[in-house]
Amino acid sequence: MMQGVLDIPDELQSLQDIVASGFERVESVFARQLVSDLPPVDQMCEHVERYRGKMLRPMLVLLCGAASQPDLESRVRAGSTDLFISDEHITMGAVCEMVHMATLVHDDVLDEAEIRRRGKTINAMKGNETSIILGDYLIASAYELCASLESPIPSRIVGQASAIMCTGELLQLHNRNNTDLDEDTYFEILKRKTAALIGAACELGALGTLGFDQQDHPTTKALLGFGTDLGIAFQIQDDVLDLTGTLETVGKSVGKDLEKGKLTYPIIHHLNNASDQQRTLALEIIQEASTGDQSRISQLIDLVSETGSIQATQNMAQSFVDSAKARLTDIPEGPGRPMLRLIADAVITRSH
Amino acid sequence: MMQGVLDIPDELQSLQDIVASGFERVESVFARQLVSDLPPVDQMCEHVERYRGKMLRPMLVLLCGAASQPDLESRVRAGSTDLFISDEHITMGAVCEMVHMATLVHDDVLDEAEIRRRGKTINAMKGNETSIILGDYLIASAYELCASLESPIPSRIVGQASAIMCTGELLQLHNRNNTDLDEDTYFEILKRKTAALIGAACELGALGTLGFDQQDHPTTKALLGFGTDLGIAFQIQDDVLDLTGTLETVGKSVGKDLEKGKLTYPIIHHLNNASDQQRTLALEIIQEASTGDQSRISQLIDLVSETGSIQATQNMAQSFVDSAKARLTDIPEGPGRPMLRLIADAVITRSH
Repeated sequence: MMQGVLDIPDELQSLQDIVASGFERVESVFARQLVSDLPPVDQMCEHVERYRGKMLRPMLVLLCGAASQPDLESRVRAGSTDLFISDEHITMGAVCEMVHMATLVHDDVLDEAEIRRRGKTINAMKGNETSIILGDYLIASAYELCASLESPIPSRIVGQASAIMCTGELLQLHNRNNTDLDEDTYFEILKRKTAALIGAACELGALGTLGFDQQDHPTTKALLGFGTDLGIAFQIQDDVLDLTGTLETVGKSVGKDLEKGKLTYPIIHHLNNASDQQRTLALEIIQEASTGDQSRISQLIDLVSETGSIQATQNMAQSFVDSAKARLTDIPEGPGRPMLRLIADAVITRSH
Repeated sequence: MMQGVLDIPDELQSLQDIVASGFERVESVFARQLVSDLPPVDQMCEHVERYRGKMLRPMLVLLCGAASQPDLESRVRAGSTDLFISDEHITMGAVCEMVHMATLVHDDVLDEAEIRRRGKTINAMKGNETSIILGDYLIASAYELCASLESPIPSRIVGQASAIMCTGELLQLHNRNNTDLDEDTYFEILKRKTAALIGAACELGALGTLGFDQQDHPTTKALLGFGTDLGIAFQIQDDVLDLTGTLETVGKSVGKDLEKGKLTYPIIHHLNNASDQQRTLALEIIQEASTGDQSRISQLIDLVSETGSIQATQNMAQSFVDSAKARLTDIPEGPGRPMLRLIADAVITRSH
């Protein structure tokens, strides 16, 4: 999990192994849910399964499930996974990843992206129409899987988080090419389009351990807050990588945000802090960005770096990571806390 | 309901009034679920609400709910709606309509349709990207609303029906421009893309009355079968109207099926029954159809009528309506049966 990103110290290795073994169960539930009696549907689902990368959301479901156990330390020492990773956690992990994948498939249509996880996107291979319906199939399958649980609470949480994600995307589309976009609206977009599902994954993990009627439990609320802050930090890092990364390091098309008229924090910060002359030049490049001229975009990145706006963005992401970590004082002591802190750090040190 | 299509005899007027009063409750639940704190999202949802036309799916939820009551007749005479139209029926009716609207919004993107219910489509007004996400928002809101019910069974049924609908659309896309498409595959596409949700609406209606653990009850199974047959008939009629209707009568863009490479029953029947010469001409026009040349498409409709393929299609739709009606012998006697028979007839006599 988070391969090559997390450096796990010895004392957390047992917990890491247990969570990693849960991953195999998540993957098998995931694959089983998407099996169809139609070969062309199966082929596309197999291709989409290659999109799975960091598996951040299932990892958070499992890890927050573990971290909500008051006696996690002794349970880990006993070494039995199923003592605290239930079938419900596995199902909810698969559901969150499936919802996430559905949004990736639709995002690639919106972004006209060609490459994801170093492979061709579905829209590049099969066209936009198939991508739209395949995304719909993934989301419907996710809901069907979620409704296989006895409690309706996970379905409520996942349905609500998905609806909020969509309002975030709609708010972003509404502000396309809006060079006056303010920080508050930017953060509102992030909170909705990315943080809602990551927060839900953490909340579901806690509820799977504490009971589905425990939405007001301090641990549940702390982990929901942790996931929300983490999700914002994650998206800020994504926005930085879209500017500073390369196809090679990130594994997907970059420079797409400006091309699609999305103003992200580095640009907003730059426009608010640049000299009149720098600002005029930046606005000029932004207005031309839809042409996808890479040399002009590189010029903008240089400008943005000069005003310290890349650094300011990284500081902002760091502050959300710090806020996420601070919330962990409200969850039980034990190896869950340092493990979640490691994940939080990894979210903004990652280069892909 | 089904305004201008149904001619309700006096003895069914009380049941009709009761079901119609349920519609207002469905509409208010529908509108309440889609309220967002973001004005641009609200505006689009208001526009989409104009898409609501026949409300076939909520009507079937309510009517199948009523028809599953063993003592419907005396309850109708008592005149109290809430005796047999529960809040759960209302919620499930709104859910089915919301899922249906989500598919309309995405279908319009796939079909590049400009007009729906005599108004501009969302894609024509706001672009494909907004339409994709708005469709996602509608489906997420539908699931969230469905999960507000205590039982997870409706969410399972709706999730499964939605996933099946998507496989139907994917199968259709996979067979685009396939002039060898056979009848079996055509019916498989219809069963999935249209009949699954209409069948689910009827099943949900029955379960709302009989209890959610009654999926194997003869009434539930009969109404599920009724809805499935009706859904197939409905889609066959839609396919006929796309060939023979006009924008004015149908209220949406027509002639789209051929333009998008979708072979429907009239065309399949024609290709299988035409002389070699007629067949060659038909294939030629089909291959050119993507240009949208209306005079060529009119020529094809004439050809298709000559071989009796329009009539054969209408006979096929009629046979599914007959099959649907025959299933009603397994539901309780009372005014529900003749009312459902009227609906079944209206599905293929409609001109829009």
